Amino acid sequence: MEMGSGNNEKAGILTRGWRWMKDLPKNSFTKGVEIARQTKKIGQDDPRRVIHSLKLGLALTLVSLFYYFQPLYKNFGVSAMWAVMTVVVVFEFSVGATIGKGLNRGLATFIAGALGVGAHYLASMTGKVGEPIFIGLFVFLQAAVTTFIRFFPKVKARYDYGLVIFILTFSLVSISGFRTDEILDLAHKRLSTILVGASTCVIVSIFVCPVWAGEDLHNLVADHLEKLGNFLEGFGEEYFAGSVEAEFKDNKSFLVGYRSVLNSKTTEENQANLARWEPGHGKFMYLHPWEQYLKIGALTRKCACRIEALNSYLNSEIKAPEEVFQKVQEICTIMSKESGQALKELSLAIGTMTKPSSPNRHIVNSTTAAQNLESLLKSGSWEDINLRQLISVAAVASLLIDIVISVEDIAESVTELATLAKFQSPELTVPESKIPSNAGISTKQLQVQDCPRVIISINLTPATDEVHQSQFQDSNQEAKQNVQV
Amino acid sequence: MEMGSGNNEKAGILTRGWRWMKDLPKNSFTKGVEIARQTKKIGQDDPRRVIHSLKLGLALTLVSLFYYFQPLYKNFGVSAMWAVMTVVVVFEFSVGATIGKGLNRGLATFIAGALGVGAHYLASMTGKVGEPIFIGLFVFLQAAVTTFIRFFPKVKARYDYGLVIFILTFSLVSISGFRTDEILDLAHKRLSTILVGASTCVIVSIFVCPVWAGEDLHNLVADHLEKLGNFLEGFGEEYFAGSVEAEFKDNKSFLVGYRSVLNSKTTEENQANLARWEPGHGKFMYLHPWEQYLKIGALTRKCACRIEALNSYLNSEIKAPEEVFQKVQEICTIMSKESGQALKELSLAIGTMTKPSSPNRHIVNSTTAAQNLESLLKSGSWEDINLRQLISVAAVASLLIDIVISVEDIAESVTELATLAKFQSPELTVPESKIPSNAGISTKQLQVQDCPRVIISINLTPATDEVHQSQFQDSNQEAKQNVQV
Repeated sequence: MEMGSGNNEKAGILTRGWRWMKDLPKNSFTKGVEIARQTKKIGQDDPRRVIHSLKLGLALTLVSLFYYFQPLYKNFGVSAMWAVMTVVVVFEFSVGATIGKGLNRGLATFIAGALGVGAHYLASMTGKVGEPIFIGLFVFLQAAVTTFIRFFPKVKARYDYGLVIFILTFSLVSISGFRTDEILDLAHKRLSTILVGASTCVIVSIFVCPVWAGEDLHNLVADHLEKLGNFLEGFGEEYFAGSVEAEFKDNKSFLVGYRSVLNSKTTEENQANLARWEPGHGKFMYLHPWEQYLKIGALTRKCACRIEALNSYLNSEIKAPEEVFQKVQEICTIMSKESGQALKELSLAIGTMTKPSSPNRHIVNSTTAAQNLESLLKSGSWEDINLRQLISVAAVASLLIDIVISVEDIAESVTELATLAKFQSPELTVPESKIPSNAGISTKQLQVQDCPRVIISINLTPATDEVHQSQFQDSNQEAKQNVQV
Repeated sequence: MEMGSGNNEKAGILTRGWRWMKDLPKNSFTKGVEIARQTKKIGQDDPRRVIHSLKLGLALTLVSLFYYFQPLYKNFGVSAMWAVMTVVVVFEFSVGATIGKGLNRGLATFIAGALGVGAHYLASMTGKVGEPIFIGLFVFLQAAVTTFIRFFPKVKARYDYGLVIFILTFSLVSISGFRTDEILDLAHKRLSTILVGASTCVIVSIFVCPVWAGEDLHNLVADHLEKLGNFLEGFGEEYFAGSVEAEFKDNKSFLVGYRSVLNSKTTEENQANLARWEPGHGKFMYLHPWEQYLKIGALTRKCACRIEALNSYLNSEIKAPEEVFQKVQEICTIMSKESGQALKELSLAIGTMTKPSSPNRHIVNSTTAAQNLESLLKSGSWEDINLRQLISVAAVASLLIDIVISVEDIAESVTELATLAKFQSPELTVPESKIPSNAGISTKQLQVQDCPRVIISINLTPATDEVHQSQFQDSNQEAKQNVQV
């Protein structure tokens, strides 16, 4: 019996081995197709990746010319390989990262090289026996201290790479000094080749299809606002459409787009750190207020968190009965839709770098709706309803009220950005003069709790709507002339 | 008038300059004290940072011995500086990161070195004119292709550094080949010095006060669960204590501890990637299920998001009147406290690597409370209450129900981890036999909606409590003997 099972096992292994061999061409082909598909996707998702790869190849080829041409090679000799190394490690995807790394590497090499030479001379004064001991001590101390400094958060954010290169160069120069007398020449060659490599990187990075970290951050923040806007715009109808469409909900990408916002903190902070290295470009000045984007980002994530809580009610089975729906549906749908549109308008304002309209009519509408919801709840026409059935709707309504407040905070923050970054005013200036922006009418003051009886005439809406359209579509010739004067 | 203002300005600048000079010693002193304070804090927050700094110094000093001692220097010559460089760039805070970088650097150097030598011989066959052209072409192509491969997410997570070193070494070896005939010697020296440097790093990293990325991830996940538990434990009493203590709430750190959980995704993913490089150590096997920690982390963040929504009600001014409070207060406080305790028990189970009790009594309690809340709401004794005043309490109750479900998901995920990682059973095994873990009684089945009439006898609680206490305090001698058999 046991032998039989042993034979079976052997046969099983052979069969499996044979099958694996037979399937090998098919499997390899499948894998090849999969890799090709993924390659295409990565290239299509962001074509700048392909360009970046070619740019690195270009920079590397340029620097390697030092080896090929006799006159260039004569100056640097074998040290020219430092230039090649520099290109490989310094060349990054965005201009900011490349400049940051290049400056860090250049400055750190300069300072550490000078200190290393100093340490070498200091140690060499102690004689043949003392020299290695002193150099060893210097290397140990500077490495330990510099490594500890790397843990300071502010230093880590901007100068981490510089400190690594500092340890590297100091050690190299001071240790090499023990063996070669041409220590000054070594330090000088290392510095100049690194400068050649780093400046090649920076030049290629800036002048061949540049990728600006600041612009990416700018677009990312605008994109996140739009994603939240998309969710809110669609939520009201989706929620009140009932559970019939439940199975289709997972396919609706606009309802899950907000999820990428939740974990965006690290990306945004990185981009902001890199953006600070970048010179002025396009519509961005040198000292563009990148910090403010982080503030907007934090508020956006807070709002996204509330949306995450709201989202759980989309798939929840506890739904209030029709009767309650009909009363609340209209108001909640307005709140959701209007705050969604407000977010999308803010996103567009950032995207086009124009001042957001203030007060924003969508925020005013959503605030009014929130007040109406309160009045409806106060009216007391609910007494015959089972409370358990109302609880889900009450939670949705309460979250929506919170989201309206959250959107107001975002709007305030975007307005602050518009001021700091000197965004252009919308092209049509006449209706703006009717509602002076410095009159102190903040939408914050129209909040749910603070003033329960604000009546906003609906007559204003068409006028504001007109501003809104002409502002972004440039359809109004007169408006254009106004600006050109 | 203008001249006057000019003079004033000049005087102003002089005054300011003088004041700055006068304040310089004081300012420098203040700044010095500030830096000293921050240094102390960074060291105290994680003393392993100080040790890491000293370890790097040690590794660097060890490697620099190659320069000092003639017999060692004879083998490597000037190339010994590659070993120094390797130590500086490979030595990282955790063992996983150091091994990962060391392996990446070693393997990439080996493969790229071999290919570089091959490319050099291939190009040299084309003659004096063709050689630089072909080498340039090879360098350009491999740099562009390898850079593009770095964009693949899976490759980026584990082999990013290896690819950079691949480009570096291939370029260095193939380009150097154009100028020096000792290309094989160059490739060989580069490889052996890098291996010396990398293995020094790995040895120091493992044998001198090791910092394991896996252990950090393990503790981080347990710590996050505890933070959420702390919030929930305190929330009920805090919320129903009324607005009297509102001004003290900001000082209560346990109420804001959960915030660090929200943005933990990147850290956790990094740690998991690094942990995969680590050999088995302490209680962790080589193939510890690090992926499962990421799943628990994702569920924890989902729960934290709901807690963030809940937290906004702590500071909200809209509070239901006393009458409603008295009825709901007790139940909500139980739900919050019990799910908080459930989370803390799960955190402890991870921390001590013991199987969490199943079904968890705290989860059962909170589920029961959720059912009681429903019954209370269904009883219809609420008809005379203003609905607007109820809405905030309803939202809190609804969020708490969601959180109870969320905690159940986390408990399930932790149980899965306990199975995958073969956590030990609690020391006292007798009561466990009464509730067999494979009986299929999942807490999931006790959910709010699915079975509205589950009655759990309160008599079970003291017995379970006993298990719980003896499990972690080792107070029961008999239990200890049970295990030693």
